[in-house]
Amino acid sequence: MDAALRQSKALCPFMKKATAAGLRAMTTAARPALAASPCGGTISKLQVLARRCPVMGKAMAVQSARGLPGGVAGLSTLGHAQSTKAKLHTSRPHDAQVEGSLFREKVPLPPRLPVKPQQHVAPAPTTHASACEGRKFDYEGFYNAELDKKHKDKSYRYFNNINRLAKEFPRAHMASREERVTVWCANDYLGMGRNPQVLKTMHETLDEYGAGAGGTRNISGHNRHAVELEHTIAKLHAKEAALVFSSCYVANDATLATLGSKMPDCVILSDSLNHASMIQGIRHSGARKIIFKHNDVEDLEQKLAALPLHVPKIIAFESVYSMCGSIGPIEEICDLADKYGAITFLDEVHAVGMYGPHGAGVAEHLDFDAHAAGRPQGTIMDRIDIITGTLGKAYGCVGGYIAGSARLIDTVRSLAPGFIFTTSLPPAVMAGARAAIEYQMDYGGDRRLQQLHTRAVKEALNERDIPVIPNPSHIIPILVGNAALAKQASDKLLQDHQIYVQSINYPTVPVGQERLRITPTPGHTKEYRDHLVAAIESIWTELGIKRTSEWAAEGGFIGVGEPEGAATETPLWTDEQLGIAETARALRAESPKGLTERLLERDQMEQERAGGVAAAAAAA
Amino acid sequence: MDAALRQSKALCPFMKKATAAGLRAMTTAARPALAASPCGGTISKLQVLARRCPVMGKAMAVQSARGLPGGVAGLSTLGHAQSTKAKLHTSRPHDAQVEGSLFREKVPLPPRLPVKPQQHVAPAPTTHASACEGRKFDYEGFYNAELDKKHKDKSYRYFNNINRLAKEFPRAHMASREERVTVWCANDYLGMGRNPQVLKTMHETLDEYGAGAGGTRNISGHNRHAVELEHTIAKLHAKEAALVFSSCYVANDATLATLGSKMPDCVILSDSLNHASMIQGIRHSGARKIIFKHNDVEDLEQKLAALPLHVPKIIAFESVYSMCGSIGPIEEICDLADKYGAITFLDEVHAVGMYGPHGAGVAEHLDFDAHAAGRPQGTIMDRIDIITGTLGKAYGCVGGYIAGSARLIDTVRSLAPGFIFTTSLPPAVMAGARAAIEYQMDYGGDRRLQQLHTRAVKEALNERDIPVIPNPSHIIPILVGNAALAKQASDKLLQDHQIYVQSINYPTVPVGQERLRITPTPGHTKEYRDHLVAAIESIWTELGIKRTSEWAAEGGFIGVGEPEGAATETPLWTDEQLGIAETARALRAESPKGLTERLLERDQMEQERAGGVAAAAAAA
Repeated sequence: MDAALRQSKALCPFMKKATAAGLRAMTTAARPALAASPCGGTISKLQVLARRCPVMGKAMAVQSARGLPGGVAGLSTLGHAQSTKAKLHTSRPHDAQVEGSLFREKVPLPPRLPVKPQQHVAPAPTTHASACEGRKFDYEGFYNAELDKKHKDKSYRYFNNINRLAKEFPRAHMASREERVTVWCANDYLGMGRNPQVLKTMHETLDEYGAGAGGTRNISGHNRHAVELEHTIAKLHAKEAALVFSSCYVANDATLATLGSKMPDCVILSDSLNHASMIQGIRHSGARKIIFKHNDVEDLEQKLAALPLHVPKIIAFESVYSMCGSIGPIEEICDLADKYGAITFLDEVHAVGMYGPHGAGVAEHLDFDAHAAGRPQGTIMDRIDIITGTLGKAYGCVGGYIAGSARLIDTVRSLAPGFIFTTSLPPAVMAGARAAIEYQMDYGGDRRLQQLHTRAVKEALNERDIPVIPNPSHIIPILVGNAALAKQASDKLLQDHQIYVQSINYPTVPVGQERLRITPTPGHTKEYRDHLVAAIESIWTELGIKRTSEWAAEGGFIGVGEPEGAATETPLWTDEQLGIAETARALRAESPKGLTERLLERDQMEQERAGGVAAAAAAA
Repeated sequence: MDAALRQSKALCPFMKKATAAGLRAMTTAARPALAASPCGGTISKLQVLARRCPVMGKAMAVQSARGLPGGVAGLSTLGHAQSTKAKLHTSRPHDAQVEGSLFREKVPLPPRLPVKPQQHVAPAPTTHASACEGRKFDYEGFYNAELDKKHKDKSYRYFNNINRLAKEFPRAHMASREERVTVWCANDYLGMGRNPQVLKTMHETLDEYGAGAGGTRNISGHNRHAVELEHTIAKLHAKEAALVFSSCYVANDATLATLGSKMPDCVILSDSLNHASMIQGIRHSGARKIIFKHNDVEDLEQKLAALPLHVPKIIAFESVYSMCGSIGPIEEICDLADKYGAITFLDEVHAVGMYGPHGAGVAEHLDFDAHAAGRPQGTIMDRIDIITGTLGKAYGCVGGYIAGSARLIDTVRSLAPGFIFTTSLPPAVMAGARAAIEYQMDYGGDRRLQQLHTRAVKEALNERDIPVIPNPSHIIPILVGNAALAKQASDKLLQDHQIYVQSINYPTVPVGQERLRITPTPGHTKEYRDHLVAAIESIWTELGIKRTSEWAAEGGFIGVGEPEGAATETPLWTDEQLGIAETARALRAESPKGLTERLLERDQMEQERAGGVAAAAAAA
């Protein structure tokens, strides 16, 4: 350790506190990725930290400016940032990062992992970065190394070519037009993508207003379709205003990044299972982020209580968590927000169209009767500050939105680059999405049937000891617990049974929690359901995938085979809300087995009888 | 100054170097915005810097943990970041930011600016943050203050309701269906939004495959439309592969954020006029950013030369800069990239469809004959590593893309959350966009006419002393130089002349450079052009807006009235490429005045004659 380092250690409370072993550990490469890229210029964790320190950063800069290897004279992002054209700060400015090599020169780096020689990659592994200086960075080698990692950890994605057929919903053709499969994992939950009213509206709009919007919202891309769609969304959620984005990924990212960066000292409290779009938005805001345990209001309260009351806080969470189907404790979070002076940011992406008397989502569902009666005031939905939703799942189109107070919406509209500097959605898409929302506001039949089909499939799988991760929503996650096995099960379903269910692997779910995620729709009638259940049964046997009872024998896992699992399973849509309370009671008294299938059968018989009576009446 | 501060000053090279006056200046509020929000918790610039310092940050955390006001015990983002579900790092992790009040307690803050009392806002201005502790943050007051700022600096945007009519292109109706205007500022440059082949393809796709894709690319949203569109884009740019995103905003943001964060020690060199999407992508990457002067290859070379050769570098720039119409020095930048081991990231958003024999953009245009002959090897376009483009402007639909090497594309496909976790574009949009690209690959008539109409309008305006910012592209920026005046001119054009040209104000252009931005299309025939020119002439007189000669008298400004302005005006599309060399020479010999209008007149006469001959032949 040379004088400079010793001096640093003496002066710096951080270094002073660090143990020798801790410091040594920190001199290993910060990014294991780099080991595979001999000219990658690996840096240690210590260097990463040091570069962020104004003290060490300055020292490194001075040393660099004196012409040490790897140095850049006077390079500073702070100075340049001033000349940025638009001065759009949705991120807090990054620290001055200066090129330097203080630690590189002094601290011995551990040997790199051996790499297999690749095209363009210098073949010899090296133990010192200086070996790479003087050579250009190997970009193709870097891409190769990144892809290799994905292949090795089984997270490399192979896309299936799935062409969903509007006239044969829920069927699709593969690359070959003749090869038909049944889609069991799309997010077109209600089949609105083939809804005749939606399609009619889109055709008409296409003819009258053309293919694209032709500009950003500010420059010729604002039109009646945007106005009407935003009006409809605001009405749906009983909010003052709404704003439409290219996608809900963009809506979440742009809104959280903008609010988090603009509100002074903002802290964002984020559920640990939040979607990538929220994670990115929070990261892009530069605001402080505090993760609370999934759906754990006690943990959240503890974290809120530790923050000063006057500091702005956003609690970001979801209503339906799409990969496990769990549902957020919305009311409790509203209570905490009130108590601790926070605002609530609720992602209803997997719930809009699906819950509540008008399809406004879980927040609406929780005050079902009040909303059915048109009294949103004082409801849980009314208390939520920011609701975000998608037009691309239950509404069958594409796009995303936020809804909230007029001033909030105007602020995001005025400040978010991801909204301002992008082409508006096509008129036909906006018109189609609006038609879908209005259709679902008026008609509850699709979501009722979707729920019944979900119940039927869950019951059938549970009766066969297939490990459904218990949840109160419309998602059916089946636990596999192994990446290769999950992919194999998915491939077999497709190839042997013409059933398309994508396997969900890391990083979408944690390693060890790999699953098949099944999403029934109103179009998945009995023959499709029977086919699915039989196919899964056969594959579980064939591949020897663990059953619920086996998980139970090991003490259970993420709800599967756990005694409390059943408790969380009570569906959000009650028998009363589905209008089946009486029939279900009668059928349950006969036998609990295949309850929902029997119920659906009776439902259909009644409809046919009603249809027959109506036809007879019409004929008379 | 207390002991802690004196000690800091003695130990810290940063503080040591700072002058007393400099430090004092830094204790003013970092965000003037906050002055209007009494409970906003204003922090000084010094605090902002201090929080980023591991030394001071730690000290502040320790003090907070001891229970000082505003403190949070044990709050650290570093610890929580580990539990993030997906571990998606497109941004480098932010520093641990800890709540603290060391400086707040010790350094006297300057008095706040007085604010006018607002709803929900505590009325009394305060000189100390502690006055706000104990009160909840006033969110609505914050939104109000942000909006007030926009109103005050005239950057608040009022959207015009413009409904572009496919059958009356380039006409639109306003909120009322009866009120017609001519659109002169859309980015549907070639009128592809109403192209019959595009619309036919979209109608058919809508009928066969429905409204939306129904999922992300990985989960049921990958289909033949995506495959075919990406294939067509790759072919257009003569690259191995392409990847489609929700928009080119997302494409730029996601690609730069991913590469910049993943490539070790990556430096991104960014043109000072780059689009917001690139600025955000670079910011989100966390990579070091170096801004080079707009189109200044000497400045760029200086900055490249100062970087170590082995460090990965991305040069991010545009071909056509949309607000001024300037064109990037693509070949020179490729040369520098080769010399200094960088890769090139070229945004062709305003050029695709518009330049080159196949509409692949400016990079293709620069080797016009080679590409016309189908020999892309070794051309400038071939040398560009990453080309990004949009489907929402000249191609008339919506969406964006990147094109490049197969490994690059696969890497971004595999790593970018903005690509992975979002619903695919609707099948009809992808099919329509593909039809538009293929149409423009085969047919050059639209872009030829677009260029001629641009020339005609520029000539007419220049002849009337209207200050067109000179440039070699299809953009016609007219300098106003004042935000209120630009809006007034735009409003008058709309109200008095039924012409829609949005004014472009800060932050899209710098303050003082406010302008009207006019975009001719093949549909802007003579009667529309004459109408536009007369309307602008009358408004310039009515509002007393500066003419070119007046700017010249002041020495010129951003090209207007500058002697070298004319030199940069030589259009990228040459007379030879437009097939008008001979006629133009003949007409120019008669008189240079209204050259292109006379040429277009002759063009039309010839076409009518040819049509007459064809009709006669057909009739015979």
